[in-house]
Formats: sequence, structure tokens, C-alpha cells
Amino acid sequence: MMENITDRDNALFEAGIKLGALYHQFTGSPISLRTADSLERAIQDSISVQPFVKSIRVSIDRSMVRSKLNSEFGYCELEGRMLDVRITVSYNSVLADVRLAYDAGLNYPLMKIEKVYSSEN
Amino acid sequence: MMENITDRDNALFEAGIKLGALYHQFTGSPISLRTADSLERAIQDSISVQPFVKSIRVSIDRSMVRSKLNSEFGYCELEGRMLDVRITVSYNSVLADVRLAYDAGLNYPLMKIEKVYSSEN
Amino acid sequence: MMENITDRDNALFEAGIKLGALYHQFTGSPISLRTADSLERAIQDSISVQPFVKSIRVSIDRSMVRSKLNSEFGYCELEGRMLDVRITVSYNSVLADVRLAYDAGLNYPLMKIEKVYSSEN
Amino acid sequence: MMENITDRDNALFEAGIKLGALYHQFTGSPISLRTADSLERAIQDSISVQPFVKSIRVSIDRSMVRSKLNSEFGYCELEGRMLDVRITVSYNSVLADVRLAYDAGLNYPLMKIEKVYSSEN
Repeated sequence: MMENITDRDNALFEAGIKLGALYHQFTGSPISLRTADSLERAIQDSISVQPFVKSIRVSIDRSMVRSKLNSEFGYCELEGRMLDVRITVSYNSVLADVRLAYDAGLNYPLMKIEKVYSSEN
Repeated sequence: MMENITDRDNALFEAGIKLGALYHQFTGSPISLRTADSLERAIQDSISVQPFVKSIRVSIDRSMVRSKLNSEFGYCELEGRMLDVRITVSYNSVLADVRLAYDAGLNYPLMKIEKVYSSEN
Repeated sequence: MMENITDRDNALFEAGIKLGALYHQFTGSPISLRTADSLERAIQDSISVQPFVKSIRVSIDRSMVRSKLNSEFGYCELEGRMLDVRITVSYNSVLADVRLAYDAGLNYPLMKIEKVYSSEN
Repeated sequence: MMENITDRDNALFEAGIKLGALYHQFTGSPISLRTADSLERAIQDSISVQPFVKSIRVSIDRSMVRSKLNSEFGYCELEGRMLDVRITVSYNSVLADVRLAYDAGLNYPLMKIEKVYSSEN
């Protein structure tokens, strides 16, 4: 076993929880260009109430939505690759910035750690 | 076999689809009193883009949310019983009004048909 | 207003609820060829416990799963177009057979009523 | 800024993602005592295909399911508090054991880090 569990460990664990939760709660939601704004806001607000979330910004790629609109019915579903999400989690003295963004090379909605830092600086 | 499938049949089938979809897409979303407004609006907008939806009104019971807020973390999850949803579906000449509302007697979030009528009157 | 609400109306409404629920509960689930069997079974079992479901058969298109597997990570997400679902709902004396299947012409996972009939024949 | 991002950081971030994903994908699923087995297995299999999951064990509390069965309809929905989940994530040389379990004191389905250790020992 390594050293004890730290604030840094918990900050990153909590940050992962938020991205996994957001993704699997909201992907699949029916969406059109007209409704992208309210869905962005609701996702942002919803995840912001969870423990340790200091800030969150959710952006849905309108051009991907447009390209996926069903030609018969005029809407599509929110897909993970349409999401760009930045979350800052705060756990005691540690802050972690994480992000979900589409990685074209991997063809994958990639979640990654961007920065881990002390709130005391 | 009974007679052929009618517009009335399709209106009710489509109405059921919308309520089932709404329920299983959005229940489980983290929510607090501060974020109930944006979640209501996003649910309404999201389901409104689906085929045959003429109108939709979503209302989340704030007193149930308040009573379910976790005392440590200050939020809860959207539950089916917190939802009051009215949808009017239009399929050719037929309109159907359906509703999801908590039935206290059954202790169940009940979906039911309220009215089926012709759009030509 | 049309005539009163019938068993036939309710059978179709309930059938729609089940398909909408199934779709929005389970799409998005991580899946690979190895795990398609257990997901099929769980979806089938889960929806079978809902009111008025007489029978349900869920089939996931393995070739679509295979074509969607991420080349880096070896899995994908369950999409609506991968599903072929047949449900029979029974409401008093009325039976309704409904289906979810991918419609290539519409490029859409289409839900439709296949048959409505009396259980007394 | 603190030191660079480590394997340990990523192991914990990935572990959080899996628990958040599992929770928000599968809670809300209709369930009865008869179908708890197949839902457990499907959840386990589904999350096991995600990147960096070394092992996963999912257990649904039957006594909670029993106590929540609707008396009219004989089923309930999977709730987070019914879940006991243990996941081991492996990221390069680091292993992390995490868990989701109901915490009665907090009245909350708590996710926590149980152990972080090196795979080389």
C-alpha cells in the first residue's frame, strides 16, 4: 500500500465522479438548435449542486448538433462528443481542473485532468 | 385482429413514448431549490422537440425537493414523484392530453390519459 | 371530445411508455461484443416488471456494435439504432404488439404499433 | 501549481468516472426481486468494458428492493442506496480500490476511495 489517501486524491476522485455522472445522466436527451441553450444551462446547474464542485461550464457543439439533426424529424440526441465541459473541484486545500472534450484523433469524448493546484496560492 | 391502426391509436402510443422517455432520461438528475427552474425548462424544451408533441408543461414539486434535500450535502435527485407533466400530442386529426402526476393513494408516479379529441372541432 | 377512453387506448399508451422508458434508461450503456448478452437480458427483465407487460424480447445488433467499437478502447455505447425490441402489452381484454427497430430509410430508431387485438379470440 | 499529473492522479480520476457513470446510467431501472440478478450482472459487465477497469463487483440490496416494491404493481426502481459496488482501477503501475455503499449516518450513497497501491508489489 502507498501512503495514505490525500486531499489531492479525493479532489481527483470527486472530479471523475462529476464527469461520469454528467455524461451518463444527460447524454441521450433529445435536442435541437433551439433547445441547446436550456439544456446546457440545466446540465451546468444540475452538476453544480453536487459536493465539491467549485465551478462548471458546459458547452454543446452546435455544428455537431446541426449535422446530426434527423432530416425527417428535425432533432437529434445529445451525444458525448457534442459536449465540452470544464469542472473545477475543490477538496479542502486542493483544486482540480478537469475537462471532457471530443478528441478527434481518438474519435472519443475524452475526460482528462488539466491541472491540480493548491487553493492557498 | 381488431380494425386497422388509427390516428387515435398512434396519438396515444406517441404520448406514452414521450412520458416514458422524459421519466427515464431525467429522473436521477441532481437538483436543489436553486436549480429546479432550469431543470424544468430543459426537460420541457428537450421533450418538445420530439415528433408529434404539440405542447408540454413540466412542473417540479419544490416542497418534495425541499423534504428530500440531503442534510449534509444540500441537494437531492429528481424523482418521478416530484414531477407533474402535461403533454398534448397531435397525430393527424387527433389530439391526446396525457399526464404524469404523483398518486398519493398508490404511492406511485402515475401516467394517464386525460382526454382524446379531434383537432377539427 | 371523442368517445370515452377505452382499453385499446390504454393498451397503446402503456406500450408507448414501455418503449420510451427502455430507450432512455438503457441507451448510453457501455457495451462490447462480450457483454451484449447480459445487457439484452437485463433490459428485457427490467422492462418486464412494469405494469401491463405481457412479453418482451430485446435484441442488440452485434454487427452495429462491432462497427462502433472504439479502436483505442474496444467498446462503444448502446445506441437506439442497435436495438430491436418487441413488446406485447395486455390491458384488460386488449393486446398490443409494438416494436422498436432501426429504419434505415429514415435513419431513425422507429417505434411503431404492429398489431392491436382482443385477448378473447 | 502542484507537481505534474501522476499515474496515481489518473487512477483516482478514472475510478471516479466509473462510479459516476454507473450510478447515473443504471439508477432508475425498473427492478423486482426476480430481476435483481440480471441487472447486477449487466451493470457489472457494462462498466467492466470501460478503460482501466481491472475488476468490478456489483451487489444490489434485496431487502431494500423488497421494502420499496410498490404494493399495487410489485416492482420498484433501482436507487443509489441499494447499490454496493467495488471497483479496482489500474492505471500503469497504480491500482485504486473504490467503493459505492449506502452510508446510513449520512443517509447517502457514498462513494469513497478505499486503497491506492502499486501493482508492482
